[in-house]
Amino acid sequence: MAVSAMPLRSPINIAKAWARRPCYGSGRYNPGVSTSLNPERTIAELKELRALTGNADGAQRVAFTDTWATARKWLREKLASLPVEVHQDAGGNLWATLKGKSEKALLIGGHMDSVPDGGWLDGCLNVLAGVEVLRRIASEGTPPVTVRLVDWCDEEGARFGRSLFGSSAFSGSLVADEVRNLTDRAGTKLADAIKPHGIDLDRTLDARSEQKDAAAYLELHIEQGPVLESLRLPMGVVLGTFGVERHQITFTGQAAHSGSTPMAHRRDALGGVSKLHLAIRDIAVTNGGVCTVGKVTTEPGIVTAVVGKADMTLDQRHLDPAALAMMYRQAQEASHRIAGEEKIGVEWKKIWQIQPFPFHPELIEMADRAIQEVCGVSHRLPSGPLHDAAEVCRTGIPTVMLFVQSLYGISHNKIEDTTEEHLAMSVRALDRLASETMKWIASRA
Amino acid sequence: MAVSAMPLRSPINIAKAWARRPCYGSGRYNPGVSTSLNPERTIAELKELRALTGNADGAQRVAFTDTWATARKWLREKLASLPVEVHQDAGGNLWATLKGKSEKALLIGGHMDSVPDGGWLDGCLNVLAGVEVLRRIASEGTPPVTVRLVDWCDEEGARFGRSLFGSSAFSGSLVADEVRNLTDRAGTKLADAIKPHGIDLDRTLDARSEQKDAAAYLELHIEQGPVLESLRLPMGVVLGTFGVERHQITFTGQAAHSGSTPMAHRRDALGGVSKLHLAIRDIAVTNGGVCTVGKVTTEPGIVTAVVGKADMTLDQRHLDPAALAMMYRQAQEASHRIAGEEKIGVEWKKIWQIQPFPFHPELIEMADRAIQEVCGVSHRLPSGPLHDAAEVCRTGIPTVMLFVQSLYGISHNKIEDTTEEHLAMSVRALDRLASETMKWIASRA
Repeated sequence: MAVSAMPLRSPINIAKAWARRPCYGSGRYNPGVSTSLNPERTIAELKELRALTGNADGAQRVAFTDTWATARKWLREKLASLPVEVHQDAGGNLWATLKGKSEKALLIGGHMDSVPDGGWLDGCLNVLAGVEVLRRIASEGTPPVTVRLVDWCDEEGARFGRSLFGSSAFSGSLVADEVRNLTDRAGTKLADAIKPHGIDLDRTLDARSEQKDAAAYLELHIEQGPVLESLRLPMGVVLGTFGVERHQITFTGQAAHSGSTPMAHRRDALGGVSKLHLAIRDIAVTNGGVCTVGKVTTEPGIVTAVVGKADMTLDQRHLDPAALAMMYRQAQEASHRIAGEEKIGVEWKKIWQIQPFPFHPELIEMADRAIQEVCGVSHRLPSGPLHDAAEVCRTGIPTVMLFVQSLYGISHNKIEDTTEEHLAMSVRALDRLASETMKWIASRA
Repeated sequence: MAVSAMPLRSPINIAKAWARRPCYGSGRYNPGVSTSLNPERTIAELKELRALTGNADGAQRVAFTDTWATARKWLREKLASLPVEVHQDAGGNLWATLKGKSEKALLIGGHMDSVPDGGWLDGCLNVLAGVEVLRRIASEGTPPVTVRLVDWCDEEGARFGRSLFGSSAFSGSLVADEVRNLTDRAGTKLADAIKPHGIDLDRTLDARSEQKDAAAYLELHIEQGPVLESLRLPMGVVLGTFGVERHQITFTGQAAHSGSTPMAHRRDALGGVSKLHLAIRDIAVTNGGVCTVGKVTTEPGIVTAVVGKADMTLDQRHLDPAALAMMYRQAQEASHRIAGEEKIGVEWKKIWQIQPFPFHPELIEMADRAIQEVCGVSHRLPSGPLHDAAEVCRTGIPTVMLFVQSLYGISHNKIEDTTEEHLAMSVRALDRLASETMKWIASRA
């Protein structure tokens, strides 16, 4: 099939196109040679995993726990009947390698770990769809390129607060000394918790060797947001993961009696928060990104006092680094202008920052076609949440993700769900994209 | 001296005049006959009381404590040398009565009790200035009308959260069953804490008998706000105590991931708070009152989630009942308009409400003249904080208050202060007003 005539959009336009109309393909996908692909098996296996590692409160596959180990043992059993070599790398990632005619490798990834009381799809849909694709490819004999399934270790970071643990060991961005003393609620240190699972914190960066011959990375994931559902679309191709600017902003005015202080005499710290909150929402819309104030605290925080000190969090995300920098600068300028208006002080403190990871333009086009062929219609959208794909993308390996619709836009909760029709479509689209990507890798060799 | 030609202003205009230019009198006060008045003695007694009942953290005369009892014993000793009858009423208020030619009585009041770690003036300046005025009047023989000094019981409500305890027993607004089970931090019930101090909760309303023959009530108080200091004025006459509308407002939207939820898909509960906060500040200015958002809470209250539920407090105050009702209605209308704009829900829950108590117009004029005579300049302002004077006013007894400048506008803190020059002026102005009020009472008999 010829490459689509649709021009590549610049990241900023892509982000603005977030909620625009979807792209329609020429028709339904004809599975053709892939007769052995069985998406219903994937759905059955997802349910089997849920019964094995979940309870009434949801999925309980928190990384480095017994339940997580149980899930991985179960995964190894599923892989046992395939002609794949299986091993765990130094970062705790589990690899299943189907040797191809070329050493060049297609990587397909996901994560078996979940948050506590999590959903039945987040992370493991990716892995089990990958298993099914691996089965289909293996059933057809030696593939043209090597195909490797990876179950990343501790994507969620639910226990120690450090997400993307295994994939950042793979990319090399993990700094052992920054995580060594992270503790869980019971006081256990990360370095001690990972040992029983065969991971030595001081050797995690050896996982970088798994990058060898990697030629492309594919990841299917539930959207975990409302966009596809609101557009009534089964699937979308992900343009990249947002860059994030995360800050705490403190406004300082003067606490004063709510009865004895005329309006004109006040230095109301909450005035800074209210005005800046409304300003950052406009800044988000103008720049085509997202900006969120998630938490506000007030001091003294009593009904009878003008607020003397007010803290707010700010989370800004964009796919385009220049637009993200612009949003950050505009928010800072707004905060200083507002502080002047309100005769209050303002201070910024950085919480966290990460650059955007735009995915590979050719893989985006191929993913778009795969979705159109399977679903009849596709859509392009950025990913707000981070994923292991961002760490893979960081290494320069061509990367793309597929999103399948999340019902209610809800994730990290036992009510997380996707229709079985859409789950089956997502397995087919991943399979279709894997075939095309193997051809693409072979053509570039 | 003739009655001032200045017309009485309506309460709403009075409130708007809050921060306007002061009124200048014809000149400095000539103490004339009041040669025995000794304001320096009042200042010395305030320091004596501070040494007796304060510590490095400030005043510790919390009602119903031993320190409070010590302060009252000390006050009784000060009164012992005067020809006054002293008794405690059923509401715990301490009365000192100087019989006059008429049974009609001028009341002068204050409160010895303080907040914990309080200032050296709040409440006790009123009482000790009253003692000095009583001394001066007594030194001149039998006055034309009876003069009564009252030390109200537990004005602050610092221990049990119920302020104006004694004065509301006097007015009859105290409901025993509403306060019976109030407990302090140690778990002691109010009804039990007051017994050792000779107060039987079920008899407190007998204090209403003290209203008999009361013809006017005067109270001097530190301003506890920034108005007089900002205008560089020693004193002002108080127009009345604000009415208060105090509510908790809850906005309910939808918690959502800060990365995966486009701006247009959000139902941001914090949007309700930010917009309403800015709206109520405008409503306050438009109506000449004060409106305060003192506390905001956010749920889930994390940096990565759009706010699903946001609570805010609202405190609205005005001297004019119609204007207060208007501010309340405008805030409600604004909240519903904003909820519509933001596609979120809004609910109101009343915390507390009290009507305004405008003071007596003739006493306001007399107080204004007394201040002009003593200070050369006066000013009219409402009282944001409540005072015992509000409860007296509630009974229909003609009432007025004098404010003396607070440094930094600060009270309820050990740094609370007023210059000694202004303290001396305030004793002289109260004395001057007491003389004029006695004449006024006699002229109405």
